[in-house]
Amino acid sequence: MAKTIGVIIDFLNDDYRRQLEKAGAKHGYAVRFYPDSASAVGNANDCEILFGHCSQKVIASAESLKWFCCCWAGVDQFCRDGLFVNDDCLLSNSSGAYGLTISEHLIMVALMLLRRQPEYTEIIREGGWSVLGGGIRSLHGSRITVLGAGDIGTEFARRAKAFGPARITGVRRSAKSGDPAFDEVCTVDELDALLPRTDLLVMALPNTAGTANILDARRMALLSEGAYVINVGRGTAVDQDALIAALDSGHLAGAALDVVVPEPLPADHPLRRAKNLLLTPHVAGNMTLRYTQQRSVDMFLEDLDNFTAGKPLTHAVDRSRGY
Amino acid sequence: MAKTIGVIIDFLNDDYRRQLEKAGAKHGYAVRFYPDSASAVGNANDCEILFGHCSQKVIASAESLKWFCCCWAGVDQFCRDGLFVNDDCLLSNSSGAYGLTISEHLIMVALMLLRRQPEYTEIIREGGWSVLGGGIRSLHGSRITVLGAGDIGTEFARRAKAFGPARITGVRRSAKSGDPAFDEVCTVDELDALLPRTDLLVMALPNTAGTANILDARRMALLSEGAYVINVGRGTAVDQDALIAALDSGHLAGAALDVVVPEPLPADHPLRRAKNLLLTPHVAGNMTLRYTQQRSVDMFLEDLDNFTAGKPLTHAVDRSRGY
Repeated sequence: MAKTIGVIIDFLNDDYRRQLEKAGAKHGYAVRFYPDSASAVGNANDCEILFGHCSQKVIASAESLKWFCCCWAGVDQFCRDGLFVNDDCLLSNSSGAYGLTISEHLIMVALMLLRRQPEYTEIIREGGWSVLGGGIRSLHGSRITVLGAGDIGTEFARRAKAFGPARITGVRRSAKSGDPAFDEVCTVDELDALLPRTDLLVMALPNTAGTANILDARRMALLSEGAYVINVGRGTAVDQDALIAALDSGHLAGAALDVVVPEPLPADHPLRRAKNLLLTPHVAGNMTLRYTQQRSVDMFLEDLDNFTAGKPLTHAVDRSRGY
Repeated sequence: MAKTIGVIIDFLNDDYRRQLEKAGAKHGYAVRFYPDSASAVGNANDCEILFGHCSQKVIASAESLKWFCCCWAGVDQFCRDGLFVNDDCLLSNSSGAYGLTISEHLIMVALMLLRRQPEYTEIIREGGWSVLGGGIRSLHGSRITVLGAGDIGTEFARRAKAFGPARITGVRRSAKSGDPAFDEVCTVDELDALLPRTDLLVMALPNTAGTANILDARRMALLSEGAYVINVGRGTAVDQDALIAALDSGHLAGAALDVVVPEPLPADHPLRRAKNLLLTPHVAGNMTLRYTQQRSVDMFLEDLDNFTAGKPLTHAVDRSRGY
């Protein structure tokens, strides 16, 4: 029986189909496309490889699975013990496909906050044409702290640098080195000392035990008066009640959240009424940008070469670490 | 009688007052501050120099005026014949003070259009949490044409470059050279040939006879299907009826106007109902950013040294050209 690759990607088109079939054939694999996870559950028993937006149920039922390449960057849901039938199954992700689109989102919402764009949208919506008192702010001269200096944080820093910020500091779990786009790279141990010297805090962290609630009420109070917070990682990283309080009191000048708890956010959730909070429905890094789709396919094909050659995966995830 | 500098700036504070008085004293000038133009009309007859947000009436009544340094970048209203009592009066502007803030506005609205942020704002406003079909776009790989490659256009190009566009072309009246941030610099003669190869058209032109209606129905039709238009120069540069038609038909995917005709834009103006049109109330370059204020004062002080030394003004405007 031919070895099989199962593919579940919601952006499938003829072009991607051809690319995947061609690569599969090269390595002796049949490629089977499922329209969604539901139709794959119980029907992917023979798949040695799965690629795409698979649900946990698909993974848990895939008895022959040796490698799952996930289309998302955040794979915390696939890191719990006992999920995979074969405990040695490899896991890789598409971290690296999202930096470009999420960094554009980050620059956009940072400028929207600094320039008070949501208030101007409101003025125009009401038929007005006036200038707000109290001024606006700029990325130029701002002190920026990027919590999570991986692909997303680095791509953001590269773009932010062109605006002439005063300083961009990357914060990583342990390593003190990083991309030259950062003026400085610190470890999480130094975060508390950094916060009072931060005008804009950008959070791009995976969901792990170490990142849950990392921005709590205590750390928000440490942030400089009038600072801004942006989160594109996982909603669990922010104490949402504390954020609402810090915004409503004016200690924070604004925030932008693309990720929240829970998602979808209920229509009557208190976050929707917080002052100067710019919400987006988890779209910073979704697969609606063609570049992100192609990059994700490319990364899978690159690792398919590695896998079939018995080499380590370039985009492997350490399941014990969670990213 | 002491020579006098009259100052009318709406961002006056103690700091700027001290800087101006100190520089005036150095050169033997008294500095007189007016709260607004209305209070200066008829009371600025002895001013040899005026600096700031002066109305045409103030200029027309200033009998001793030898130099007017305008706080705005656009000075077309001061270039008509017969306005100045003394026809040899010098005129300078604050072009150079606005590039930083207007380029941030440009990047912000470009990303908002490409990423369909106004539609996401609407989803959130209605209590929703969903992803739009049809995808988003990116500055990465986009073909950008910058009509008006002066301070504003150049600062924009420098920032846009960090996002990896396919090509940034600057368009100038005559010169074929420009800042290295542009991949290429063309003249207005070549504009028609450029438009079919443009995904994003950024307009940052002064208001002159040559720029009025420069983007008319014919040129909009030349733009590539699904292109975006952004204007931060003067509203007169765009045929607004043609723009509404091009947006509503879907030929243009979106537009962002910070300048319109007339301003303020009436609440019932048809522009407010155009499809995918992002309006802002002429705030891209206003004086609400501290950097812009200080830069404008610095430029005046630099030229005060030039003026008193009998040297040409660095920021002089050619009144016959209009900028």
